Amino acid sequence: MDIVEQVTKRAKEFFADSKGSHDWEHTLRVYNLCLRIGEKENADMEALKIAAILHDIGRKHQDKCNGEICHAEKGAILARELLSEFGIEANKINKIVHCIETHRFRGNRIPNSKEAKILFDADKLDSIGAVGIGRAFLFAGEIGAKLHNKDADIDKTKPYTKEDTAYREYMVKLKKVKERMLTDGGKHIAEERHKFMVEFFDRLNNEVDGNL
Amino acid sequence: MDIVEQVTKRAKEFFADSKGSHDWEHTLRVYNLCLRIGEKENADMEALKIAAILHDIGRKHQDKCNGEICHAEKGAILARELLSEFGIEANKINKIVHCIETHRFRGNRIPNSKEAKILFDADKLDSIGAVGIGRAFLFAGEIGAKLHNKDADIDKTKPYTKEDTAYREYMVKLKKVKERMLTDGGKHIAEERHKFMVEFFDRLNNEVDGNL
Repeated sequence: MDIVEQVTKRAKEFFADSKGSHDWEHTLRVYNLCLRIGEKENADMEALKIAAILHDIGRKHQDKCNGEICHAEKGAILARELLSEFGIEANKINKIVHCIETHRFRGNRIPNSKEAKILFDADKLDSIGAVGIGRAFLFAGEIGAKLHNKDADIDKTKPYTKEDTAYREYMVKLKKVKERMLTDGGKHIAEERHKFMVEFFDRLNNEVDGNL
Repeated sequence: MDIVEQVTKRAKEFFADSKGSHDWEHTLRVYNLCLRIGEKENADMEALKIAAILHDIGRKHQDKCNGEICHAEKGAILARELLSEFGIEANKINKIVHCIETHRFRGNRIPNSKEAKILFDADKLDSIGAVGIGRAFLFAGEIGAKLHNKDADIDKTKPYTKEDTAYREYMVKLKKVKERMLTDGGKHIAEERHKFMVEFFDRLNNEVDGNL
């Protein structure tokens, strides 16, 4: 078993009982996107793969504490501990930990290596396109929200309430994701996914009115 | 207030506390589709509008009894009672009640009037296209199911379980809806919505693999 496989085996354990929107499958999708972008950008693929696999291992701590713990910060600490068991050299560990710590891009945790930028892009890309649409509706179902309300006042609808919708999430967040990409590969994929998402919600609004 | 508006006001009361997938908005979408198809097919628009508005008023009885009561049958009884208050002529009431009773097309309850066929088509159309995609993921979220599993054995995955997905619903049910349309107008809309749904799930599978 190579190092990536060994880390994967350990990482999976952090995802027992995880919710649909940030489960182990999300990690696998982000991993696949990192492969695609990373190869084009000539990234350190071993560091990138390990960072992708470990990027959300702090998630359940954030969920447990209503967001008071940042999963990226916590995940970085957990990853450093875990990686110390594998005899990886210190430089490589630092590189991986930096990716995990900055994949949320909050406060002073800014992705500044190629690999960290790729992981950030891959993670955000998983919230748009067909996957993003599916996740937004799945999440709406999980919190007992509505299917759709195209005429709602987007600014006044509160997230995490019954009046919330996937469409609000799209209007407020998802349609802006493409502007946030940090790599050329990420930008290219984001443009395509964005286009499809626009088409989807246009169609949804038209179907709701009985026009399509 | 005309008769359609009066019936609408009464019908809404049946939808307090209804779930996302068959809520009042579903009724409004079916109503909009009935308008579109009905006008092309020269239907009795007053009967069709009232039938559309009342078609799911028996739904909460079915949900309460784990499906032992058929909502179409129950809805037909409730609609006959409700309509008797409005001084509508007996023939028209029979026409409306027939639509409601047969909109599920089960057993010997077969839609045989133009209006009943249109209502059947409109109701089924709301389960495909962008709306159908949204509803399938929303429902998956409501029952705590997964986002996606393209490699699952479709025949072995049980509905209403955590391993269920919108994709299973699509493979088993939604992709066959277009074959069931009873009117030309319904067929035309179903073809378009079907095409978009195929595109969506193809894209989803490709995105999951990191190809798009």
